[in-house]
Amino acid sequence: MSYTSAQQPQQEAGFRTLYHFPLCPFSRKVRLVLGEKRLPVGLEVESYWQRRPEFLAINPAGQVPVMIEANDQPVVGSQAIVEYLEELESTPSLLGQTLGERAETRRLISWFDEKFNSEVTKNLLGERIIKRFSGMGEPDSTAIRAGRENILYHLHYIAYLAERRNWLAGDHFSVADCAAAAHLSVLDYIGDVPWDRQLAAKDWYVRVKSRPSFRTLLQDRLSGLPPVAHYVELDS
Amino acid sequence: MSYTSAQQPQQEAGFRTLYHFPLCPFSRKVRLVLGEKRLPVGLEVESYWQRRPEFLAINPAGQVPVMIEANDQPVVGSQAIVEYLEELESTPSLLGQTLGERAETRRLISWFDEKFNSEVTKNLLGERIIKRFSGMGEPDSTAIRAGRENILYHLHYIAYLAERRNWLAGDHFSVADCAAAAHLSVLDYIGDVPWDRQLAAKDWYVRVKSRPSFRTLLQDRLSGLPPVAHYVELDS
Repeated sequence: MSYTSAQQPQQEAGFRTLYHFPLCPFSRKVRLVLGEKRLPVGLEVESYWQRRPEFLAINPAGQVPVMIEANDQPVVGSQAIVEYLEELESTPSLLGQTLGERAETRRLISWFDEKFNSEVTKNLLGERIIKRFSGMGEPDSTAIRAGRENILYHLHYIAYLAERRNWLAGDHFSVADCAAAAHLSVLDYIGDVPWDRQLAAKDWYVRVKSRPSFRTLLQDRLSGLPPVAHYVELDS
Repeated sequence: MSYTSAQQPQQEAGFRTLYHFPLCPFSRKVRLVLGEKRLPVGLEVESYWQRRPEFLAINPAGQVPVMIEANDQPVVGSQAIVEYLEELESTPSLLGQTLGERAETRRLISWFDEKFNSEVTKNLLGERIIKRFSGMGEPDSTAIRAGRENILYHLHYIAYLAERRNWLAGDHFSVADCAAAAHLSVLDYIGDVPWDRQLAAKDWYVRVKSRPSFRTLLQDRLSGLPPVAHYVELDS
């Protein structure tokens, strides 16, 4: 199996490199943040389960994303990269202006990166796709059923927030939107999001999907695993 | 079962309240950070598995720690609280001064709060203690064996860092030390840390344990589950 990504030649993009995997929601969160802040980056696909020694030397945890700055500074882990980028380039702020806004944004980032990830993403993407790619065994049908059940609760929560706020964490687009959309986008690629069950969540996602920062995600393709038809459509 | 904690009366401490559980490593990380920054706090034990409606209204994820500021601002989740406290009170900085130092501190926070937690803490504290407290079933002996194996690798990594640096993330004491010591302290309470296997890790832990911020952790007691003898000793 192989994969292609919206990858720019590194010598042109220069500056910084992100080691990522196309369907990794944590990598996608970082790609959205880089796009929103208009920070140039070269993308390198890392098949992290192969545990390449040069990669493990940078991140002994063996996971993506890992960013290498132009000065060779490694920044390891998606939330460390998000905080780094916010400190490097504070405009536009993607965490919020006040301490209270930033607390709410970070609460929701943990909600999606921990709770949604363990209850939904691991059960669906992990069982159906990552296990196949990494050769880690057969999908567990009990886990897949749990993921399909759990996503309904999470879509309901997203709809609840989207009906009360302009964006998930409040008035402004934030990393909370990036984190939520990153997880949903990888599930949407494989057709696992029952959008029709929560139209307010769907409306919010269509708004995120139409942002320029999202384009690179829509261009990702895994060979042997094309996305479902509506994945790239901007109005559905 | 009941538990006592180094709890100050809320009306005296005033200011802010931390909902925590005495043997929760994420709560302990936050208590260390509050202590290092000399920020006063009232502690309230929350038996989060009972899913108290008033607590779920603040944190629908139902987990500790949750901090409530004097202005009623909730700050939910241990890393959100750490970032909040660093922005509120930047002296002493517990993340680092430069972007690079802060990236390394946050890399190690994730290492301990994600990797160490899932490979060690959940398998030992989770199986042996939390299941009993929360009535969630019998300990899984396979998981406990895995935890006892995995902790050796993690102690080795801590020793590796401690032999090369003054503190785990570099020259200065940081949240990386708080996170690592928080996990190890709950395992030390139940006697599950084979300190003699990695003396450099033990030396580092004794240095952390002797800091004033650590005192409140050493006073925690769960009734029916006293700590092992060396838990409170400052030289072992």
